[in-house]
Amino acid sequence: MNDSIHKGRESATAFAPASVGNVAVGFDVLGLSVQAIGDRVTARRTTERGVRITAITGTVVDLPLEADRNTAGRAVISIIEEQAPDFGIELTIEKGIPLGSGLGGSAASAVAAVVAANALLPTSLSQLALLKHAMHGEAVASGSVHVDNIAPSLFGGLVLTVGVDNPNVKQIPMPPGVHCVLVHPHMVLATKEARKILKPDVSLSDVIWQTANLAGFLAGCFTNDLRLIGESLNDVIIEPQRRVLIPGFDAVKHAAMSGGALGCSISGAGPTVFAWVPTEQSAQVRDGMVAAFNAAGLQCDAWISTLEAHGAHVIA
Amino acid sequence: MNDSIHKGRESATAFAPASVGNVAVGFDVLGLSVQAIGDRVTARRTTERGVRITAITGTVVDLPLEADRNTAGRAVISIIEEQAPDFGIELTIEKGIPLGSGLGGSAASAVAAVVAANALLPTSLSQLALLKHAMHGEAVASGSVHVDNIAPSLFGGLVLTVGVDNPNVKQIPMPPGVHCVLVHPHMVLATKEARKILKPDVSLSDVIWQTANLAGFLAGCFTNDLRLIGESLNDVIIEPQRRVLIPGFDAVKHAAMSGGALGCSISGAGPTVFAWVPTEQSAQVRDGMVAAFNAAGLQCDAWISTLEAHGAHVIA
Repeated sequence: MNDSIHKGRESATAFAPASVGNVAVGFDVLGLSVQAIGDRVTARRTTERGVRITAITGTVVDLPLEADRNTAGRAVISIIEEQAPDFGIELTIEKGIPLGSGLGGSAASAVAAVVAANALLPTSLSQLALLKHAMHGEAVASGSVHVDNIAPSLFGGLVLTVGVDNPNVKQIPMPPGVHCVLVHPHMVLATKEARKILKPDVSLSDVIWQTANLAGFLAGCFTNDLRLIGESLNDVIIEPQRRVLIPGFDAVKHAAMSGGALGCSISGAGPTVFAWVPTEQSAQVRDGMVAAFNAAGLQCDAWISTLEAHGAHVIA
Repeated sequence: MNDSIHKGRESATAFAPASVGNVAVGFDVLGLSVQAIGDRVTARRTTERGVRITAITGTVVDLPLEADRNTAGRAVISIIEEQAPDFGIELTIEKGIPLGSGLGGSAASAVAAVVAANALLPTSLSQLALLKHAMHGEAVASGSVHVDNIAPSLFGGLVLTVGVDNPNVKQIPMPPGVHCVLVHPHMVLATKEARKILKPDVSLSDVIWQTANLAGFLAGCFTNDLRLIGESLNDVIIEPQRRVLIPGFDAVKHAAMSGGALGCSISGAGPTVFAWVPTEQSAQVRDGMVAAFNAAGLQCDAWISTLEAHGAHVIA
């Protein structure tokens, strides 16, 4: 690399999609990007070295402006420390993903930041290198290194990640004719709280059911078998423990399933609830889920997202 | 059905392959057929109604001759009770699979019996119907209904089964250029003993590792990704508890892995150990595994089997 050539851009804006962590059957190993919402980060070269955050706008504004305490900032610091470019980077963050919604907001900010910063570098980094830098960023928010939101937000689609230090990332094909419905009730559920409620052990019989469901879901996706996906997209380990944290969850799930959803569960640590729904039923299922949350006293945002394998990308 | 037409054969012999239950990462949900060994059952029409077993030959001869206490006999009784043909069925069983070897011997006898009996019926039953009849048979031997040996022996190949009452059966593609090495030490391990040693609970962190490995293994098989298969074919839940039941297991596994195996674990409830090995290394890996068992004081049989999706079939 020759820093004096400056092949990279002067500034770049990147979009990174929200993501559904776990996808019901793959706790900490599966994630799904959703194009309908996401975060935008603009990176600009500065003569002053280091990383600065100049503005945070959008759905969340009370995030730290100190770069090393901010997921986007920390991810770009990780790049700068490794690549040592002869310039600094200034970031502006436009949050589209609500805080504590279970939609991978901190991951999306970190991913958008590394993708935007990468466009400034004289030589582009690999996707896997960007993944690792974004993981450093997300560690600021979650307190530990998780990759099940980072990987789908960066790579796009339904993504399996195996391992943490040198993660294997695999995109899983998704069935055509299916939408992902997302309903976000207006309450905040901290990931740490949702982790704390989980029992440290799982019964062996539940492990067998969950692994059968995970295997059935993956096999159904690889062979476009909607019946098998519908019979398998069912979390018997995590959802039964976390459902109590989300008022009205049982009614919301019932509305989704009785409306024709293939499966319905908690997005990441919640409180957002997602459902996979055949395209024709998706608007009706969304309305039923929203009505059920309303009946439980919660206002909602709702989105219908196509299942597409589009990850984060530079938009300007 | 018109029983008086007698479209079925007078007699038929069927072969059903042995199978590797669990396949390391899919406890009770994955199974793999192995063509190298199996059981043969001959079914003959008799004017006397009901089911009789006239002979049991081969590797195991001290099995019950009373039809309703024998896995093959009980499976065929299940067919007769449902189909009520105007003839009886006489069975001879030729065992190729050693007793208590962890190679699905009772499943193979039940499967060979239903496939042979099916050839005698005026109207053939579906594969799924045969699966259920064979499950009735295997319940005699194992004391509970399991399908993870029945399904691969009947359908062939690497088979996922989800659910018990109405099992979903899915054949998973397997990578070319890989052999399954099987080494059976001369000791008997009863499935019930091997079940009893398992703790009723699993730590959540082990669940995450195992599900990541299962998902990685399946995704690797669907996309022919040998590197991912090699990194994923690792059982962190069952094998660590059962390895103490098999003298020399650690050395046998070490011999397999250091010889180039993609993965090595216990076949079903053991004591047979299996390994997936690139074709070129398979003979050397087999020899290393046998030598390690010998060093632990155990004589062995060993087989190298191609990975093929051939299930049970009528051979005469």
